[in-house]
Amino acid sequence: MADIQLKGKIPVAVLGATGAVGQRFVKLLENHPWFEVTTVTGSERTSGGVYSEACRWVLDEDPPEAVGHLTVQDSEPNLEARIVFSALPAGIAKDVEPQFAKAGYAVCSNASAYRQAAGVPLVIPEVNGDHFDMLEQQRAAQGWDGLIVTSPNCTTTGLAMTLKPLDLAFGVRQVFVTSMQGVSGAGYPGVSFLDIHDNIIPYIGGEEEKLQAETCLLLGRIEGTERFPAEIGISAQTNRVPVIDGHTLSIAVKFDRAPTAEEAILVLEGYEGPAAARGLPSSPEKVIIVRREVDRPQPRRDRNANHGMSVTVGRIRKCPLLDLRMVSVVHNTLRGAASGSIMNAELLVAKGYVK
Amino acid sequence: MADIQLKGKIPVAVLGATGAVGQRFVKLLENHPWFEVTTVTGSERTSGGVYSEACRWVLDEDPPEAVGHLTVQDSEPNLEARIVFSALPAGIAKDVEPQFAKAGYAVCSNASAYRQAAGVPLVIPEVNGDHFDMLEQQRAAQGWDGLIVTSPNCTTTGLAMTLKPLDLAFGVRQVFVTSMQGVSGAGYPGVSFLDIHDNIIPYIGGEEEKLQAETCLLLGRIEGTERFPAEIGISAQTNRVPVIDGHTLSIAVKFDRAPTAEEAILVLEGYEGPAAARGLPSSPEKVIIVRREVDRPQPRRDRNANHGMSVTVGRIRKCPLLDLRMVSVVHNTLRGAASGSIMNAELLVAKGYVK
Amino acid sequence: MADIQLKGKIPVAVLGATGAVGQRFVKLLENHPWFEVTTVTGSERTSGGVYSEACRWVLDEDPPEAVGHLTVQDSEPNLEARIVFSALPAGIAKDVEPQFAKAGYAVCSNASAYRQAAGVPLVIPEVNGDHFDMLEQQRAAQGWDGLIVTSPNCTTTGLAMTLKPLDLAFGVRQVFVTSMQGVSGAGYPGVSFLDIHDNIIPYIGGEEEKLQAETCLLLGRIEGTERFPAEIGISAQTNRVPVIDGHTLSIAVKFDRAPTAEEAILVLEGYEGPAAARGLPSSPEKVIIVRREVDRPQPRRDRNANHGMSVTVGRIRKCPLLDLRMVSVVHNTLRGAASGSIMNAELLVAKGYVK
Amino acid sequence: MADIQLKGKIPVAVLGATGAVGQRFVKLLENHPWFEVTTVTGSERTSGGVYSEACRWVLDEDPPEAVGHLTVQDSEPNLEARIVFSALPAGIAKDVEPQFAKAGYAVCSNASAYRQAAGVPLVIPEVNGDHFDMLEQQRAAQGWDGLIVTSPNCTTTGLAMTLKPLDLAFGVRQVFVTSMQGVSGAGYPGVSFLDIHDNIIPYIGGEEEKLQAETCLLLGRIEGTERFPAEIGISAQTNRVPVIDGHTLSIAVKFDRAPTAEEAILVLEGYEGPAAARGLPSSPEKVIIVRREVDRPQPRRDRNANHGMSVTVGRIRKCPLLDLRMVSVVHNTLRGAASGSIMNAELLVAKGYVK
Repeated sequence: MADIQLKGKIPVAVLGATGAVGQRFVKLLENHPWFEVTTVTGSERTSGGVYSEACRWVLDEDPPEAVGHLTVQDSEPNLEARIVFSALPAGIAKDVEPQFAKAGYAVCSNASAYRQAAGVPLVIPEVNGDHFDMLEQQRAAQGWDGLIVTSPNCTTTGLAMTLKPLDLAFGVRQVFVTSMQGVSGAGYPGVSFLDIHDNIIPYIGGEEEKLQAETCLLLGRIEGTERFPAEIGISAQTNRVPVIDGHTLSIAVKFDRAPTAEEAILVLEGYEGPAAARGLPSSPEKVIIVRREVDRPQPRRDRNANHGMSVTVGRIRKCPLLDLRMVSVVHNTLRGAASGSIMNAELLVAKGYVK
Repeated sequence: MADIQLKGKIPVAVLGATGAVGQRFVKLLENHPWFEVTTVTGSERTSGGVYSEACRWVLDEDPPEAVGHLTVQDSEPNLEARIVFSALPAGIAKDVEPQFAKAGYAVCSNASAYRQAAGVPLVIPEVNGDHFDMLEQQRAAQGWDGLIVTSPNCTTTGLAMTLKPLDLAFGVRQVFVTSMQGVSGAGYPGVSFLDIHDNIIPYIGGEEEKLQAETCLLLGRIEGTERFPAEIGISAQTNRVPVIDGHTLSIAVKFDRAPTAEEAILVLEGYEGPAAARGLPSSPEKVIIVRREVDRPQPRRDRNANHGMSVTVGRIRKCPLLDLRMVSVVHNTLRGAASGSIMNAELLVAKGYVK
Repeated sequence: MADIQLKGKIPVAVLGATGAVGQRFVKLLENHPWFEVTTVTGSERTSGGVYSEACRWVLDEDPPEAVGHLTVQDSEPNLEARIVFSALPAGIAKDVEPQFAKAGYAVCSNASAYRQAAGVPLVIPEVNGDHFDMLEQQRAAQGWDGLIVTSPNCTTTGLAMTLKPLDLAFGVRQVFVTSMQGVSGAGYPGVSFLDIHDNIIPYIGGEEEKLQAETCLLLGRIEGTERFPAEIGISAQTNRVPVIDGHTLSIAVKFDRAPTAEEAILVLEGYEGPAAARGLPSSPEKVIIVRREVDRPQPRRDRNANHGMSVTVGRIRKCPLLDLRMVSVVHNTLRGAASGSIMNAELLVAKGYVK
Repeated sequence: MADIQLKGKIPVAVLGATGAVGQRFVKLLENHPWFEVTTVTGSERTSGGVYSEACRWVLDEDPPEAVGHLTVQDSEPNLEARIVFSALPAGIAKDVEPQFAKAGYAVCSNASAYRQAAGVPLVIPEVNGDHFDMLEQQRAAQGWDGLIVTSPNCTTTGLAMTLKPLDLAFGVRQVFVTSMQGVSGAGYPGVSFLDIHDNIIPYIGGEEEKLQAETCLLLGRIEGTERFPAEIGISAQTNRVPVIDGHTLSIAVKFDRAPTAEEAILVLEGYEGPAAARGLPSSPEKVIIVRREVDRPQPRRDRNANHGMSVTVGRIRKCPLLDLRMVSVVHNTLRGAASGSIMNAELLVAKGYVK
C-alpha cells in the first residue's frame, strides 16, 4: 500500500460520539497518522455541552484531552470534516447517514442500518476491499457527492475473516457456528451483572440472522455494480458469556475440496488479503494468527493480538461430520467495531475515494 | 415404581470420600430414605483419620455431622456396606472396583474406568435403565457375587437425556454439539482463577471423545447380553467457561423423520422414561423441562431445577442445515455426577439386584 | 414466642411488587404460615396487567403460581389486606406509606423514606424489637389507625446484628467498618457487568451515611416515646464487589470494657435476642453463627446460613489499635431486605399490633 | 537522575524464571534500555531444558523470543550476569541469595526471605531510596563483594507509597487498612476458581503481619548504618477478591498535624520522591495519581496507570474517627512485584553500586 501523501491530517467527525462505540472511535483516533477528530456529535441531551462533561466515559483508558475540549454538535451535515464515522443507533443512522452522503461526506458506518442495503458496500478490507468498486454506481444512482460504506457486526467479522482464506483455497459450503460473545458487544450499560454473572444467556436478539446474512455478503462477489452473496449454508447459535471483551467462535466447515488440517493451517497463516488492503495504518502484522497449542485461542489471552486487529484461530482438526472444526477469537470492540470502520476509511483514502 | 419395602436402611460406603465428588456423595446421601453412609474411604494420606479432619471440605454447604465422626478407611473390600459408591480417580478405580465386585459389593461408579468396558452397563435410569439386564451375564462371565454399574460423564448426561426422547420418537442420526461447561466439572482445586476468569478455554482433555462414545452407548440397545452402540454421528467441541456449576450444550440434530419444533417440544415435555425408573427417591418430577422463553435455559437459573435432577431444554427451533437446533442445561455435579450414581443404585434396589 | 393462634392466614399486600425487592417479598411469602399475598401493586405502567406478565421476573427461582394470576393494582389504600409490605422507591414511599397507615394498614417498609423519621421505629427484631413500643405514640400523634415500621439498609443490618450482643455485654464506643457489598444490593438492572466485572467500585451513594445513622438508631434506646440514638463513633467505607449476593464487613471495634476474642465469641454465639423475637416463623435457629476457621466467613459459603437469616462472624481477634477486629457476612436481599420486613411483620403480630 | 552512560547493556539473570513472578521479570526486561537477560534459572525439574519448553507460560502476553531460546540453568553463583533478580520461593531464597551476594552479584530480590533482616535494605525508590546507604555496611559486615536489596510485599507497596508523602508533610501516627487483593498476588496456579468466584476470602496467610512490619521499615529512617522503623500503629485486615490484578486499599489515617482533604491531595499530587529516584527507566510520570471522581480509584480502570507504576489514590475525605479516609489502588504484579525490583536495580546502577 505504497505511497499515501497527505498534506496534513484529514479532519474527521464521530457521529454519536458520546456512546460506548463512539468513545471507542474517539480513543482509537487519538494519535492516528492520517485522521484528526475535529467534530463530535451527540443527542439533543448532550449537544452544546463540552465533550468531556457531556459524555459519561466508560472505557478503561482515559479520554484524549484534545477531544475533551470539543463542543458536542448536532448530527447535521454541516460539520468541518471530510470523513464521518457513524456510531449512531441503527434507527437514527437510517435517516442521518444518507444526509451526510448527499452533502459530500464519506460515511464510514458501524451501524447496521445499511449493511444489507443494495448498493452499499459491507466491507472488511482484507476480506472484500474490492467491494468498494460499487461506490461509483452508488454515487451515480443516489446522486451523492459523498458515499456510505459499512462494516459488519462484530461476530460476523470474526467468522468472515476466518472463512475468507479457506473459501478462496477450498470453497466453503456449509458452516455450523456457536458463538460465545463478550459482554462489551452489547454496549453500555448493556447487560446487568445480575443477568450474566456466573451464567450464560443463549440468545442475542437478531445476532444469528445478521451472522448468516452478513457473512454471505462479505464472502460474496460483485459483478459490475451488482452484488452476489456467497451461497453458503450457515447454522448459528449465539450466546452471551461472562467475558468482558472478545468473541469466541466454535466452527465446523464443509468445503468443496476438503483440505487436511495442516493444509488449512498453512492457508490461514499465509493469508495476506488483497494488495490494496496491506500496510494501512490499522493493518495488523498478520491477518490471521494460528495457535497450535491444544487449548488456544482463548479470548483473554488472544483478543489483543496485534492491537486487537488480528483474528486468532486454533484447534483446527478433522470434524467427524463435516470436514474441519476450529475455534476463532476476534476482539469485538476493536477489529469487530470501531477499528473496522477506521480501517475502511483508510482503504477509502488509499483507493482515492477520499482526498 | 411401586413397593420397595426395606427393613432399615441399606449400609453404603463412599470410596474416595475425601475428594470433591466423594464429598458430594456424602452430602447427597445425608438424609437418603434408603441408604445410610456407614463407611468412607480415602488415600493412604487420609486413611485412619477422622473424616471431618482428614478431608478439606470444599462444598458450600457444611458436611453432615454423622459422617464427620467416621474414621477414614482404606479402599479395601472388607467394609460394612452392601453398595459402594466409587468416586475414585480412574486409575485407582481400574484396580479397586473389580475387587469390590468380586467380594460381593454392588459398585455404583462415577469413575470413567469401566464406562466403555464390555459387559459393564453405563446407565442413566431414564435413558437406558434396561441395560442392567447385562448384569446377569456380567456376574456369570466374571464369577462375581457383586456387580459394577457406571454412570456417564457429566456432559454426556446432558446430551443423552436430551436426545433420548427425540431418538425414540424421530430417530437421531447426526449431532453437532458445542458445550460450555462449568468449572466444578474439573474437580478441586481444578481450574485456576487465573486461567478461566474473564476467559474461555476451548479444550477439555478427553471430553470430546467421551461425549461421542458414551452417548452412543447410552442410546444403544442390548440384545441378549450384547451391547450395540447407537449409530449416531457426533461432532463435539467442548469449552470451559467461567460458570461455577452447570453445563450448557448448543445442539443441532438431524433425524430420520424430521419433527417440527413443536412436535419435539411435546415429545420432550411428555417424556417419563421407562416405568422402572419412575418414582425413585432421586427421580425428578419431570425428566426434561422445556422452557419457551427466548433466552432460556441459562445455567445459573436452570441448573437447580428439581434439585438439579432435571435437564432443561430451550430454544428449540429449525436448523438451517440439519433439522433442529436447541440448547440444554444439566447440573454437572448433581445429575451429571454423584446423583446419577445414587439414582443408579436406587434402580438396582428397585430391580432387586441389591437386597 | 408462645401461642399465636390465627384464624386463617392474614391477607397481605406487596406494594411495588414488580421490582426486584417486591419480587423477593412475593417469593418469600409463597408458603408463609401466617401470611398470604392477596394483592400486588405496581406502577401506572404495570397496573391492570396480570402479575406474571406485567413483571419481568429477575430472581433465579420461578415465581409462585398463585400470585402470578393476580391483577396488579394501584398503590392506593383500598386493598384487601391487613399488612402491606412496601418495596416502593423511597420517593414514592414518602407519599404512599402514610396514606396506608392512616387508612388502618400496618405498613412494614423496606424503603428508606421513614427509617430516620421521628416516631417511626426502625427495627430488627433480635436487636431492638422493643422499639415497637413507640407505636402507641405514633398512632396517637398521627391520628392513624394503622402504623409504619421500617427495616434498615442491608449493610446496616449486618453491622447492627454483629454489634448488638457485644454492645450489651461490653459497650461499643467506636467502629471502623469497610464493606464489600454484593451487586444484588443495587436492585435490577442495577450495576452493569462492564462496570463491576473484574473490578471494585469504592463508592455507593448515601450508603456510608445510612450505615452510620441507622446503626446508632438500632442500637439506641427509647425512653417513654422518645428515641435516643446510641453514641457510637462510626467510620465507614463502602465498596461494591463482583459478588452476586452477600455483604462482607471488615470491622474494628473499641469497647467500654475490652473483652478478649474468646469472650466476644461466647457472647456472640450465645446471643438469642429479646424473648419476644424468638421462635417467629422467620427466626433463624441462631442469630449469630461464629466460624472459627481462619478463612471464614465468606459470602458465597455463609450467606445462606439458616435460609439467609443468620449473620456469620469470624476472624475475631485482637486489633492493634482498637480492641477487636472481626469479619461479618449478611445476606443482603434476605435478612438485609425482604425477610427483615417480613420478620418485623411477624413480630407485630406476635405483639398484638396486628390482629 | 542525570547521566547514566552505559557501555552496552548490563547482563542480568532471573532466578526462578519459570514461575509466575519470574516470567513477569523476563517479560518486563524484554526491551529494557539498561538490562539484558542473559541467564534464566529454574528448579531441578526444569534445569537443562530450553526456557520456552521448560516453562509453562502463564502471562497473557507471549514470552520474548530471545529468552525463549536460553537454556535453564541451576541457581548457582557462576552465571554470566552482574545483577540477579530473585523470584525464588522464600525458603530457597534464604540459602541462595547470600551465595550470590558473596560471589559478587547484586541481588535484587522480590522474595520475602531477607526483607526484614538486619542490614538488608527494603526499598521502594521513591519512598526510601536513601536506605541503599546501608549497603556499605552490609558489604563490610558480611564480607560480600556483591549485595542484597529487597523490594516489599505488593500490598505494602501500595500502602507505603500512599503514606510516604503524607508522612513527610503531616506525620502519620495510626493507620486502619482493609485490603481487597487481586488473585494474581497468590501466584500460579494460586487460587482455585471454585474458592474465589462469586466470593471473598477474608484471610491471606502472613499478609497482615507483613503489611504492618514492612510499612514501618519503609517509612523508617537510617542513622549511620542502623535502621529505625517508623513508629506507626497499623491495624490491617487483608482480603482476597475476585479481581485478576490490582490491590485496593481502604485506608483511615491519624496524623501528627491533621491536614484537610485538599491539603492531602496537593501533597500527594505534588510528590516526586527523592531526586535520585527520578527519571529512572521504570519511573512513572507521576508517583501518585489523585482521582477526584467520587467512585475512583477502581482496580480495573486504574491498575495500569503509567504502565502499572503509579499508585492511584481517591476518595480522600474527612474520617469521623481519625483524620482522613482514602482509597488506593496499586498494580500488584507490576509496581508491587517484578517492576519494583527492576526499579531498585535501576537505582543501584544510578547510584553507582553496579557498574
